Amino acid sequence: MQLTVTQLTEALIQSYARSGGINHIDGKNLPSKTTVTRLTCQLLQLLFPGFFDDKPLHTSELKIETATLLDAVAGDLEDEIAKALAYAPASASPAPNPRALAREQTLTFLAELPRLRELLATDTEAAFNGDPAALGREEIILAYPFIEAIAVQRMAHQLYLREVPLIPRIMTEWAHARSGMDIHPGARIGTHFFVDHCTGTVIGETAEIGNHVKLYQGVGLVARSLAGGQALKGKKRHPTIADRVTIYANATIVGGDTVIGAGSTIGASVFLMQSVAANSLVLNNECDVRVLTKADRANPAVDFQI
Amino acid sequence: MQLTVTQLTEALIQSYARSGGINHIDGKNLPSKTTVTRLTCQLLQLLFPGFFDDKPLHTSELKIETATLLDAVAGDLEDEIAKALAYAPASASPAPNPRALAREQTLTFLAELPRLRELLATDTEAAFNGDPAALGREEIILAYPFIEAIAVQRMAHQLYLREVPLIPRIMTEWAHARSGMDIHPGARIGTHFFVDHCTGTVIGETAEIGNHVKLYQGVGLVARSLAGGQALKGKKRHPTIADRVTIYANATIVGGDTVIGAGSTIGASVFLMQSVAANSLVLNNECDVRVLTKADRANPAVDFQI
Amino acid sequence: MQLTVTQLTEALIQSYARSGGINHIDGKNLPSKTTVTRLTCQLLQLLFPGFFDDKPLHTSELKIETATLLDAVAGDLEDEIAKALAYAPASASPAPNPRALAREQTLTFLAELPRLRELLATDTEAAFNGDPAALGREEIILAYPFIEAIAVQRMAHQLYLREVPLIPRIMTEWAHARSGMDIHPGARIGTHFFVDHCTGTVIGETAEIGNHVKLYQGVGLVARSLAGGQALKGKKRHPTIADRVTIYANATIVGGDTVIGAGSTIGASVFLMQSVAANSLVLNNECDVRVLTKADRANPAVDFQI
Repeated sequence: MQLTVTQLTEALIQSYARSGGINHIDGKNLPSKTTVTRLTCQLLQLLFPGFFDDKPLHTSELKIETATLLDAVAGDLEDEIAKALAYAPASASPAPNPRALAREQTLTFLAELPRLRELLATDTEAAFNGDPAALGREEIILAYPFIEAIAVQRMAHQLYLREVPLIPRIMTEWAHARSGMDIHPGARIGTHFFVDHCTGTVIGETAEIGNHVKLYQGVGLVARSLAGGQALKGKKRHPTIADRVTIYANATIVGGDTVIGAGSTIGASVFLMQSVAANSLVLNNECDVRVLTKADRANPAVDFQI
Repeated sequence: MQLTVTQLTEALIQSYARSGGINHIDGKNLPSKTTVTRLTCQLLQLLFPGFFDDKPLHTSELKIETATLLDAVAGDLEDEIAKALAYAPASASPAPNPRALAREQTLTFLAELPRLRELLATDTEAAFNGDPAALGREEIILAYPFIEAIAVQRMAHQLYLREVPLIPRIMTEWAHARSGMDIHPGARIGTHFFVDHCTGTVIGETAEIGNHVKLYQGVGLVARSLAGGQALKGKKRHPTIADRVTIYANATIVGGDTVIGAGSTIGASVFLMQSVAANSLVLNNECDVRVLTKADRANPAVDFQI
Repeated sequence: MQLTVTQLTEALIQSYARSGGINHIDGKNLPSKTTVTRLTCQLLQLLFPGFFDDKPLHTSELKIETATLLDAVAGDLEDEIAKALAYAPASASPAPNPRALAREQTLTFLAELPRLRELLATDTEAAFNGDPAALGREEIILAYPFIEAIAVQRMAHQLYLREVPLIPRIMTEWAHARSGMDIHPGARIGTHFFVDHCTGTVIGETAEIGNHVKLYQGVGLVARSLAGGQALKGKKRHPTIADRVTIYANATIVGGDTVIGAGSTIGASVFLMQSVAANSLVLNNECDVRVLTKADRANPAVDFQI
């Protein structure tokens, strides 16, 4: 006896009625992931003019092109922010006049773009100076996932500071999917920042990072995993990294009162749950190195094939 | 003397004739990656109604929208499964009547969706309770890569159990590319599962995971790397994780008879090849911390710049 | 007093005039990321005929299909290479006749495809032999991110050897975004290479890898982070890995004169800055394992909740 599509539909509809937590039916219109993604790409064009356009950009047309793009972005971003504000997250009360607030938030956000460009110029400089493989600044802006990811986070951070719901995280998760690096919109990051390779690096919501900090792939600036997670909302849970710190691949730094002093270097795969003074060098203990002979390799009792 | 496109074509055609292992010419029609990807997105819409639709979804239209989508999915999925069954992997004999079997597998798979929704509601709950940064369940479903990745794996696991070739892995690799987390379709995973940040986490084919387990980015539940890999097909090669275990970033647990007892915590970057009892705490030995003076830093013999 | 879009445009235009390093205005036309991405996909179709086509491929049409695709690729690739050569990176002088050079580079590159297919057949074989979860070679080519990533790197390496600017890195960063594995176009890689799971693995520009090498996710073959990075351009900065080496998840090997001898095994999360002899086994020291009683867990002084 075979099931029919009608029976399957009925079963799903009953399931929608039964377990409500993962539906969004008859609710406020949520921000559209598709639109937020397109806006993010258009904002990147405004930050790095001429890099992500399909054709060369000339001075003669720069003003009209910029005004046209900015006008389109302003309208659509206001719409999405209005939806996000109307949605009202569990942790806050809904805005009384979402449309007026959305307009104000959109315009003050867009007014930050020139300042963000100055920050991003320092990040590009840090990437160029920190990576001998870089052929030039153009290669970094065109090809490096880091520049896209930090540009998106610096924009999302501005929306986060204005308490816009949902949109900042949709923006940073778009960049996360592309770069493999998960920087929460809440993280506060200084100038001349660079993350080499990016994949697997995680920077939590309440992390604070100074100037001239260099990270590698797989570095985690994360929180302790305490019971009752939601009770910690808003508390400082992620580390503070002072100026001129370098953290090697796959090191994990844990906790909200952990401070890595200025000028320190943290070795690869270190797991650190305590603060260290300025100019510290933190390394795991030396590895065991065993060299096996041919006889060893013939002996199955030697656990060589791990 | 310059090469011509005709010469280049000739060279490639000869190469296609010479090394056959990486061609698929005159073979059975393979499942289409494009179609399987579209089906995966449509199935996510059915699992989380209203979240991934372009417009708000109202009760009045829910039944007709669901029936229409389910009907389209059922037809296309049956076609792709029929192709996969006709292809017949090296390790099995081809199905005698792929079309009838494809229809049965499609319908019994779709009948599992309501039960998968109940599991995914527990995962969403675990993500919300486990992450103070989460503003609400909507943010988790809209933005967190984890929810997409686990939803895809739980669906692919159902097709894996039905021994559908190729399609389960195309589905999980699509999620892998987006989330950075590689969960094999074969892995058996309990309720209230959560992986924070996801990037780099790997869960192998024969891993078994209990309820209320929390992982972080870069965790590997992997196999020993023995010679003669294909001889191990079907054997239990990946660890078993009991209930209420937390495993921190970049820890690697190896081997098919390794069992992590209930309630245990595994620290970051641990490399574990043996079982541990319930309620264990496993950490690497303490790091070396050296603090360098200005004089140290001026001395090139001190290997500070690692 | 609300800002207007006209004021915001004016502020951005002033910013474009002020901080020039991250603009590309009135410059040479850069290679298009969109076109390079499309070309990369078409080249994958030529390398693996029948796998990434939308319809089955038959011998009768193979020659005409291949000639048509190759002709289109040759023309577009020549255009993009000509743009890249005209752009002229900071570190080199512009080519005197970019168009003629672009044509030569395109044709000699395309002539390498049959040889790359032979290498990729050895990689596919290594993946199949090394992974008991693989159902067949078709699954590996259709679904595994590794095959796509190594195919793209082997092609980009050919363009890198010809000193084509920008395009090789755009190609490998496309693969990096999809697979999570960052292999620089400069890396020299032997036959029968396999990286399981891929996410987070990083292989630097001057790394050299022998034959039959197997890596896991999160492995870094990286450079020391010395001051004055750009001064090191062109120097050997990344490790050399001899034949038949296996490197487990999240291990980091650092430095240009570090050599891992043939037949060695490096354990997970190892951080290694020195050479090791052939047949070495390198492991971190044993972990601390503490098992906590119920009384321990009731005592907050026991730092169990890390």
